[in-house]
Amino acid sequence: MSKPFLKNAWYAAAWSYEVKKELFERTIIGESILFYRKENNEAVAINNACPHRYSPLHLGTLMGDVVECKYHGLRYDGTGRCVHNPHGDGRIPGKMCTKAYPLEEVHGMLWIWMGDPALADPATIPDFSCHTNPDYPSVQGMIEMHGNYELITDNLMDLSHVEFLHKGILGSDAIKRGEHELLQDGTSVWSNRWCPDGLAPPAWDHMFKDYGKPVDHWLYMRWDAPAHMLLDVGITPTGRPRDEGIWMYGTDILTPKNETSTYYYWGVARSHDKNDAEMDKIWTGAIETAFGTQDKPMIEAQQGMLDSLGVTDLDEVEPVLLPMDSATVRCRRIMDKLRGQDGVTLPDPRNPALTDLVRKANAEEYSGRVVPVV
Amino acid sequence: MSKPFLKNAWYAAAWSYEVKKELFERTIIGESILFYRKENNEAVAINNACPHRYSPLHLGTLMGDVVECKYHGLRYDGTGRCVHNPHGDGRIPGKMCTKAYPLEEVHGMLWIWMGDPALADPATIPDFSCHTNPDYPSVQGMIEMHGNYELITDNLMDLSHVEFLHKGILGSDAIKRGEHELLQDGTSVWSNRWCPDGLAPPAWDHMFKDYGKPVDHWLYMRWDAPAHMLLDVGITPTGRPRDEGIWMYGTDILTPKNETSTYYYWGVARSHDKNDAEMDKIWTGAIETAFGTQDKPMIEAQQGMLDSLGVTDLDEVEPVLLPMDSATVRCRRIMDKLRGQDGVTLPDPRNPALTDLVRKANAEEYSGRVVPVV
Amino acid sequence: MSKPFLKNAWYAAAWSYEVKKELFERTIIGESILFYRKENNEAVAINNACPHRYSPLHLGTLMGDVVECKYHGLRYDGTGRCVHNPHGDGRIPGKMCTKAYPLEEVHGMLWIWMGDPALADPATIPDFSCHTNPDYPSVQGMIEMHGNYELITDNLMDLSHVEFLHKGILGSDAIKRGEHELLQDGTSVWSNRWCPDGLAPPAWDHMFKDYGKPVDHWLYMRWDAPAHMLLDVGITPTGRPRDEGIWMYGTDILTPKNETSTYYYWGVARSHDKNDAEMDKIWTGAIETAFGTQDKPMIEAQQGMLDSLGVTDLDEVEPVLLPMDSATVRCRRIMDKLRGQDGVTLPDPRNPALTDLVRKANAEEYSGRVVPVV
Repeated sequence: MSKPFLKNAWYAAAWSYEVKKELFERTIIGESILFYRKENNEAVAINNACPHRYSPLHLGTLMGDVVECKYHGLRYDGTGRCVHNPHGDGRIPGKMCTKAYPLEEVHGMLWIWMGDPALADPATIPDFSCHTNPDYPSVQGMIEMHGNYELITDNLMDLSHVEFLHKGILGSDAIKRGEHELLQDGTSVWSNRWCPDGLAPPAWDHMFKDYGKPVDHWLYMRWDAPAHMLLDVGITPTGRPRDEGIWMYGTDILTPKNETSTYYYWGVARSHDKNDAEMDKIWTGAIETAFGTQDKPMIEAQQGMLDSLGVTDLDEVEPVLLPMDSATVRCRRIMDKLRGQDGVTLPDPRNPALTDLVRKANAEEYSGRVVPVV
Repeated sequence: MSKPFLKNAWYAAAWSYEVKKELFERTIIGESILFYRKENNEAVAINNACPHRYSPLHLGTLMGDVVECKYHGLRYDGTGRCVHNPHGDGRIPGKMCTKAYPLEEVHGMLWIWMGDPALADPATIPDFSCHTNPDYPSVQGMIEMHGNYELITDNLMDLSHVEFLHKGILGSDAIKRGEHELLQDGTSVWSNRWCPDGLAPPAWDHMFKDYGKPVDHWLYMRWDAPAHMLLDVGITPTGRPRDEGIWMYGTDILTPKNETSTYYYWGVARSHDKNDAEMDKIWTGAIETAFGTQDKPMIEAQQGMLDSLGVTDLDEVEPVLLPMDSATVRCRRIMDKLRGQDGVTLPDPRNPALTDLVRKANAEEYSGRVVPVV
Repeated sequence: MSKPFLKNAWYAAAWSYEVKKELFERTIIGESILFYRKENNEAVAINNACPHRYSPLHLGTLMGDVVECKYHGLRYDGTGRCVHNPHGDGRIPGKMCTKAYPLEEVHGMLWIWMGDPALADPATIPDFSCHTNPDYPSVQGMIEMHGNYELITDNLMDLSHVEFLHKGILGSDAIKRGEHELLQDGTSVWSNRWCPDGLAPPAWDHMFKDYGKPVDHWLYMRWDAPAHMLLDVGITPTGRPRDEGIWMYGTDILTPKNETSTYYYWGVARSHDKNDAEMDKIWTGAIETAFGTQDKPMIEAQQGMLDSLGVTDLDEVEPVLLPMDSATVRCRRIMDKLRGQDGVTLPDPRNPALTDLVRKANAEEYSGRVVPVV
């Protein structure tokens, strides 16, 4: 009944700063994986089960570039090969190795490929370069939510909820009135809201030095499979170019731990108050409040409702749709197609214009490049 | 393996005082249900899942007679119909509604019909009018027990256990010696104990002003499907009419939360010390001790034993029966029949003579009206 | 997918001192069992479910030689027969009895036979007489580990792990260099390590009055199905007879509570410091540290890894083997055979020479009596 995870896909495994020259375990689409950095600082990912007795390697010891299993002292290098057997004649069976995963470090994150290594093309990792661009001071974090990742995709691809779930912080009347546009290019989807000439949401207004007057507000969300989202969001005085306002890239990347739990990697790379360390704290606090104390309980309550009905996937209960669900439905249908043909390489999400495109506050600029769909 | 719940039946959803002009959730036979009172004080019950995204409505806000979902602000009235969509053009799809349940407020309780609304006849709600009769001061409460409701029916329809499980409080030697009679009328069952001329159980004796001399003790339990019980119980000096003693109606209504957890609604409507608020506290304390600290651990221990054996129903392990189990077996067999023919209307439990009948201390008075069975 | 437990086998139910003239419950291979001692001090074991309502008998009261159920006061004797029904005419149905289990008290333990009583031969209980032999002061204990018992068998039949998991306490370089020998006689298996002429493990060296010079170290482990192990272990100055050193019998008996939890009965019967009560504490502390804080977390981490993979048995994931796994594999294969033919009597593990044999520090002495196998 449960939908399988995409295997041939890049998943965000961790923010770069989370993995040090220490053993670090994280479970991704059900697989327990060991991460660590070698002496040259390169990060590696190998399956966490010692092939000898299936003891978790992360309980062991990192010795330079190799990890020693705590149980019997077998040592493995970053390719998963056993390189030392301390027992008897020290012979190492050819099969004594654990799976290594393609791992790329880009955009301030570690990206892991869970399927056939031959298909792992780093060029298909979606662009989150805002987090390594010195023009945008950036804060990041991770929140574990005990719900299926597609429930969170639904949340993010339909931001109409901010006026209700995040009322008094991120919501505004203009959002309800705003235009919503769904765009698709290959397997990339945009769910864009253009909310002109209204009072800014309270948190935004406050960061814009308590501006208090009407602004144009935009929220442009890009999605790539399985659940990698980048939000271009900001406000600017009504009718004025965005550079007279404040804006940011909001990263929302979801990595399933398993069917009912998800690692939610969030990031904020902002355009404004660039040398203001206090602003780092303000954004971190705002995100932790909104995502951690408002979205998380809602996602977990939805999951609890599905659990009580004995279903694992919202689609099974045939939810009643509204026009604003068009993007969430689009993403779910793309995922259904990709699940049916796993083994294929995902279309290249690096539309050369994308990074630039999401910087525009005017939806018309999209029209020549991506195809609006219903 | 697990027996299905009766759907076409009234269940006690809550004591009236539990539901206010606030959102209130309770799960009944596995369905999460939202209760609240409208401005005219009428209570309503609708399915707690917002049909849009299956978020629990009880997390939202009550606005007069309608509830606003916390996630996207859709509003529903007490019939489950969506009456407001704040997004876009505000159109409301015809299917955007959640199930409404027939709900009756009678005998100080809210009664919910879980099956086909066309079959919901309020006249078939069993009589617990003692709780709204000013002649009987009444206290009530609810205890959740983590066991299947039929284990608790077994407990109540065979009160031989009071001498052991409630030793020193509700038990007496006379109960072991007493006569037990099983009666049935339609799908109503009586399990009656007549225990003449013995010392009263300690708790009873104490409430009878430390009487200390022999009494006639009666415990007449009425059952209606699925698990609605009323106990007529009291003591009177041996050979004297009941009005020279003290007695009460004890309500024991079981509503399954799910297969392994039950809401136990208890009530005491007493004949004695009518204007004595202290007596309210004494009875509340006695019930909470007996049901909450003696019955509840036993029910949960039985459930644990069945869990350890991998069975969900006591019948599966073929328990060895004693004569005193005749009433519990009768109730289980009636339930088996009703399960087989759900969709039929239950026989009307309102035997016109019942309320009067359970006030008699003499079992012979039953003979003309109900049929003794073995 | 899960392998069945052996039924026709003796299991250690408890150390003798654990069972008193009180009701004591323990779950063994999934069955909840009641233990108590009769007035003549004889221990008995009966199924803990009262056949009337499946209430757990251990919640009741021990009255001399019989137990009274807390729920309805039925009483059972140590054969499981109902001997008193306090209700009505007091008649006791012939079927009103709970299963009694053959129970033997020997070697300081209670041994229970879980299968056909006709096949229960006390002579087949393996020899752990060291614990009742006044020549060997003995301490015992029990640690519950939340892992399958065969994972712990693997641990014990391959002591190569002591150098890693118990580093700084029980490990030594000599253990890695030592000889390993696998022997089998019937269904008894020995996994013997002979580690001559090296520094003793720190804990051993300390107990040998901080000897500091090279010793011969031996670890001879005997196994009987399902999971009964006795370790003959000690050190002696290199080349000298064992009586110039210190040594002990280490008991390691595993009784499955269920598929994922195990009672680990440990014992130490030592040759040295016979009248030194302080040494009891030192050994108890060493075992509780090594088994409770080093082995237990590892076993539970292995179980967690198997759980995350959705398997219940390590064999399902085809672990990669090393020569030192020969004994663990041998035990697992014997268990597979015994599972296939449950109902047969286990071969008699009482090889008359065994008790004597494990006292030898020289592996050659085995050669004439047991058959080395690969």
